Amino acid sequence: MLKIQSFLPLALKYKAVFLDSYGVIKNYKGLIEGAQQTITFLRKNNVAVRILTNDASRSQEQQVESFHRLGFTNIEAHEVITSGMMAKQFLQHKILSGKIAYLGTENSAHYILQSGLEHISVNDINLNEIEDITAFVFLDDEGFDWNVDINKTVNLLRRKNIPVIVANSDKLYPVSKNNVAVATGGLAKLVESMLNKKFIHFGKPDSQMFMYAFDELNKFGTFSKNEILMVGDNLNTDILGGNKFGVNTTLVLSGNTSAEEAEYQIHASGIIPDFVCQSILQ
Amino acid sequence: MLKIQSFLPLALKYKAVFLDSYGVIKNYKGLIEGAQQTITFLRKNNVAVRILTNDASRSQEQQVESFHRLGFTNIEAHEVITSGMMAKQFLQHKILSGKIAYLGTENSAHYILQSGLEHISVNDINLNEIEDITAFVFLDDEGFDWNVDINKTVNLLRRKNIPVIVANSDKLYPVSKNNVAVATGGLAKLVESMLNKKFIHFGKPDSQMFMYAFDELNKFGTFSKNEILMVGDNLNTDILGGNKFGVNTTLVLSGNTSAEEAEYQIHASGIIPDFVCQSILQ
Amino acid sequence: MLKIQSFLPLALKYKAVFLDSYGVIKNYKGLIEGAQQTITFLRKNNVAVRILTNDASRSQEQQVESFHRLGFTNIEAHEVITSGMMAKQFLQHKILSGKIAYLGTENSAHYILQSGLEHISVNDINLNEIEDITAFVFLDDEGFDWNVDINKTVNLLRRKNIPVIVANSDKLYPVSKNNVAVATGGLAKLVESMLNKKFIHFGKPDSQMFMYAFDELNKFGTFSKNEILMVGDNLNTDILGGNKFGVNTTLVLSGNTSAEEAEYQIHASGIIPDFVCQSILQ
Amino acid sequence: MLKIQSFLPLALKYKAVFLDSYGVIKNYKGLIEGAQQTITFLRKNNVAVRILTNDASRSQEQQVESFHRLGFTNIEAHEVITSGMMAKQFLQHKILSGKIAYLGTENSAHYILQSGLEHISVNDINLNEIEDITAFVFLDDEGFDWNVDINKTVNLLRRKNIPVIVANSDKLYPVSKNNVAVATGGLAKLVESMLNKKFIHFGKPDSQMFMYAFDELNKFGTFSKNEILMVGDNLNTDILGGNKFGVNTTLVLSGNTSAEEAEYQIHASGIIPDFVCQSILQ
Repeated sequence: MLKIQSFLPLALKYKAVFLDSYGVIKNYKGLIEGAQQTITFLRKNNVAVRILTNDASRSQEQQVESFHRLGFTNIEAHEVITSGMMAKQFLQHKILSGKIAYLGTENSAHYILQSGLEHISVNDINLNEIEDITAFVFLDDEGFDWNVDINKTVNLLRRKNIPVIVANSDKLYPVSKNNVAVATGGLAKLVESMLNKKFIHFGKPDSQMFMYAFDELNKFGTFSKNEILMVGDNLNTDILGGNKFGVNTTLVLSGNTSAEEAEYQIHASGIIPDFVCQSILQ
Repeated sequence: MLKIQSFLPLALKYKAVFLDSYGVIKNYKGLIEGAQQTITFLRKNNVAVRILTNDASRSQEQQVESFHRLGFTNIEAHEVITSGMMAKQFLQHKILSGKIAYLGTENSAHYILQSGLEHISVNDINLNEIEDITAFVFLDDEGFDWNVDINKTVNLLRRKNIPVIVANSDKLYPVSKNNVAVATGGLAKLVESMLNKKFIHFGKPDSQMFMYAFDELNKFGTFSKNEILMVGDNLNTDILGGNKFGVNTTLVLSGNTSAEEAEYQIHASGIIPDFVCQSILQ
Repeated sequence: MLKIQSFLPLALKYKAVFLDSYGVIKNYKGLIEGAQQTITFLRKNNVAVRILTNDASRSQEQQVESFHRLGFTNIEAHEVITSGMMAKQFLQHKILSGKIAYLGTENSAHYILQSGLEHISVNDINLNEIEDITAFVFLDDEGFDWNVDINKTVNLLRRKNIPVIVANSDKLYPVSKNNVAVATGGLAKLVESMLNKKFIHFGKPDSQMFMYAFDELNKFGTFSKNEILMVGDNLNTDILGGNKFGVNTTLVLSGNTSAEEAEYQIHASGIIPDFVCQSILQ
Repeated sequence: MLKIQSFLPLALKYKAVFLDSYGVIKNYKGLIEGAQQTITFLRKNNVAVRILTNDASRSQEQQVESFHRLGFTNIEAHEVITSGMMAKQFLQHKILSGKIAYLGTENSAHYILQSGLEHISVNDINLNEIEDITAFVFLDDEGFDWNVDINKTVNLLRRKNIPVIVANSDKLYPVSKNNVAVATGGLAKLVESMLNKKFIHFGKPDSQMFMYAFDELNKFGTFSKNEILMVGDNLNTDILGGNKFGVNTTLVLSGNTSAEEAEYQIHASGIIPDFVCQSILQ
C-alpha cells in the first residue's frame, strides 16, 4: 500500500521546490484551488519555487500572463522553465543560417525562433524550393491541417537531411476529465516512425531541463541537489526525470491518477517516487 | 554486388507466382507497361498468378474494376488477395454482435463490414454513447478529419477495451515518384503509441495472407511451397513474409529502389531475397 | 470484474480444442492433476485435442515421451505441434546447401536440422572459416556458454548476412512458482538489438503455427474456425494468436496469473479472451 | 559527398575540446599514435581538453593510470569524465540506506559504490533474503557467470521494485578490428525487455554527462557552449549528445567507420555532425 503524506511539512524540509504545472497547480478546469496559497506559504518560509513544464507554445512572459489570467498572480517570468526554452537555446547555438521550418502556430514559432533567422510554416513550404531550409521544429499540435501537413513534413524530411527538434516531447495532454489529445511529441513520433529516424526531443524526463532550472536557481543562492524536491503527477516525466537528475521526488494525485492506479503504475514501471502526496494543498 | 537475373526464365521454373501490386505491376503513373504481357505469358505457360496486396480500401471485385480502368484486363477476382479480406474474415469469425466503429471511407467500410453488423464512422460517434460498440477497425487514411477524428479514436479506445484491428499494416504508401503519404498502418501505430497497446495488424509480412493465398491456390490444383515464387519490391513486407512462409522470393527494382539501395537494405536488414530481378518485364 | 466460467461445458460446444502446454496441462511441478482426465473426457465426447507449444528442444516423438514420463499417457505424436516444427519446415524449404549454425543443445539441433545438411554449434565455429555457413538458428537457452557464445554469435552475424531464425520466440519461461529464466527468444532479442536487425521468429502468437495445426486437424475431419477453441494461460501468445487466427479463445488461470492480475493485463494490453476459466479441470 | 577537413586548425577555433576515448585517442591496439602530441599541442595553444567516456569499470584515477600504462602520460584525473561518475553521483544522492546489488567486477563496484553503503554481487545474493537490497546497478559485462547471474538478476528485480541504474549505456564495444562484445548496456536492455521496464541509463548521448563536463570545465575559466567542440567516432553517442547539448560536433573516422559508411549513417540516422575529420592527428 502506498504511504501518502502531507505536502507542506515535507516541502519545508527543502530549500527549493520544482513544480510540474498541469496536474499540480492547474488542471483542465483552471487553477487548482489552494495552489496559490501553497506557493505563497513556501515563499514566506524561504522555499524557492520553480515551475517546470513541457510546453513550447508560449514564452516565459506569455506563460506568466496565462497564469495571471487564471488568477495565479504571484509567479514571475524567471520562475517558469519550459521545454520550449531548451529548444530555443538549441536553435540559437546550432542553427546559424537558413530558414527554420515548423509545425505549430505562428505565435509559438515567433517566440522560439526569434534568433534572427527566418521561419516558415510547413503549409507555406513549396517542396520544390527547400534549399534554404536548415532545421525543422515540432512546436505544437495546433495551427495546421493534419491531413495535409503531416504528409508534407514527412516528404520534406525525406528530401532534406536536417536537424529535427521536438520542442515538447509529451505524447498526449489532458483536455478534460476523461479526454486527452495527441500532443506535438506524439506527432513527432509518428513522423519518426515513417522515416526510421530519431529526432532531438526536449522536455522532462530529459535531464537538460532540470539542469537548466538548477543552474538558474543557483543564480539566486546556493542550492545543492539534496535541497531540492521535484513535484509532479506523471511518473514518466516528472518523477523519472527528477530521480535521474538526483533530486528527491514527490508524486501528487491531483492529476488524473488515483492512489490505486498510482500504486500499480509504480510497480509496473519501476519508477519509484521518494514520496506520495494527495496534492500540494496541505 | 547484387546478381540481377531475368525474370521470365526464373518464373517458368515455378507452378505459381505471387505478385505484389504496387511497384511490380503498377506504380504512381498507372500500370507498368509490359506487366500485362508478362501475366499473359505466365498463364500460357501454366504458371498460376495471384496478386497479394496490402489494401483494405476495395473488395476483390472493386480491385478488378480498378485494374480494368488502368487497362489491365486479364485479371479475375479470385486472383486478388488483399489484407482487407483477412480483416473481413476476422470480423466475421470474432465479432458477432454490436456495432463496429471505423476510421476510413464509407466505401471501404461497406465491403469489409458486410457481416450483418452495423458500422459507424468515428466522426459520427458520440463518445457518451458507446455501449454498443464492440470492435474498431483502421481501414483507410482517407474519409475523415485527422485533426479531430484521431483524437476521438484515442479517447474512444481509452474508454472502451475492445478488439482493434488494422486492415492494412503498411505505414506509408507512394503517391508520386518522390512523395509518400502516411497509410492507415501508420495512423494505427500513432494510436497504439498513445495507448501503449498493440492492435491486431493484417497484411504482409504476416503469414496469414500467404496462407490464405496458398489455400485458395490449392483449390485450383496441387501446389507445394517449393513450387511458388513470391515477387515484390519491398523487403519488409513481400520478401520477409515470403521467406518466413517458406516460398522462394524475388526482389524487383521496378518500385522506387535502386540496385545500390537494395544492396544496402539487404545488408542492413538481414532480409535476403533468393533472387533479384530488374522487373517482371523480361 | 472478470466472469469466470466452467471449462468442460464450454469445451463441449466445440469440435476441437487447442491447448497450450505449460500452465494448462503441466506446470513447474509436473503434470497438472486432472488434466489427463479432461483430455480423456473431451475425446470421449468427440472433441479433438491438439497441444500447441512454443518449444524447439524436442521433436514430436520426444515431446510424447516427455509427457509419458510425467504420467500423461494418452497423447499421440500427431497431436503435438511445436514452434520447432515450423522452424524445421522453414529450413527444409529455404536452406538447401551449406552448414547451419546454432545456439542450443546437440539434441535439439539433431531433430530440427535433420534435412541432410550439416549443423555446427556456435562454440565449434572458427570465425575465420565461415564461408560455408548458410543459416543460423536460435534453438535453446541451454547447451552453450553465454559469456562466450553470445558474443561469438554477434560477431558471426556481423560478418555474414544469412537468414537467422528463432525456433521458439518466447522471451522467458517459468522454472518454479516464483522464478523464470531467459528463453531462447530473449537471447535472440538481445542479438537483434546488437545488430539492429529483425530475425524470423516462429511460435505463438504468430498465425503460422495455428494454420499448421488447423491444416493438420483437417486431415482428420472437417473443422471450421468457428468450431475450434484455443486455451492458454498467456495473453500475449495463446490469446493474441488465437484471436488473430479467428478462433475462440479461453484464458485459464492455472498458470502463474491470478484473476486480479488477469483482469488488469486484459485492460492494459487490449488483448481480450472470449472466455476465462479457472483451469481445464472442470 | 562528405567534406573532410583538418582537425588541428578547426580545434584551434575553440577554447575547449571534449574527446571521446575509444576511436579517438585509443583503439583496440592501444593508444592511437600521435594522439598525445595533439593533446599537447592543444594545451600549448590554450585549448582545454576533457575526455568523455562511457565507462564504469574504473575511477578517474584508475582511468589515468590506465592511460599511463598505454604511454599516454599527460592526462590528469580531473580531465576524465566517465558515465560511472554519473552513476556514482546518483547513488550518493538517492540511495541512502540498505545494500546495493550489482552485476560487474568487485573492482568497479568498489569505486562506484563507495558511499558508505554495503554492496553485494548478484552471485552472492540469496533470493530469499533480499529485504535490505535497495538498488541495483549494471556496472560491467565481466565478473559474473552470464548463464546463471542474468537469470538471477531478472528474478531479483521481479520480486523487488527498486531503482535500477545502468552505469554505462553502451550496447556493445569493440575488442578487435573486426569483433565486438556485448557491453553492460546491452545486458541491461535484455533484462529490461524481460521485465517490460525502463531502467535509468547513464552516459552519452544523455545530456547529463555533457552538463557535468561543462560545469567542471567552468571551474577552470569561463567557457560558453559556442566555444566547445565535441569530438567522437560514434554518431549515436558522441555526436547526438553533443548536438543536443548545443556544442559543435566533429565526427572522426579513426574508429571503425569508413568515410562511405559514415556518409550513409548520417543520412539514415539524421544525426548530422557539424564537421568530419579523418582523425585528431592533423
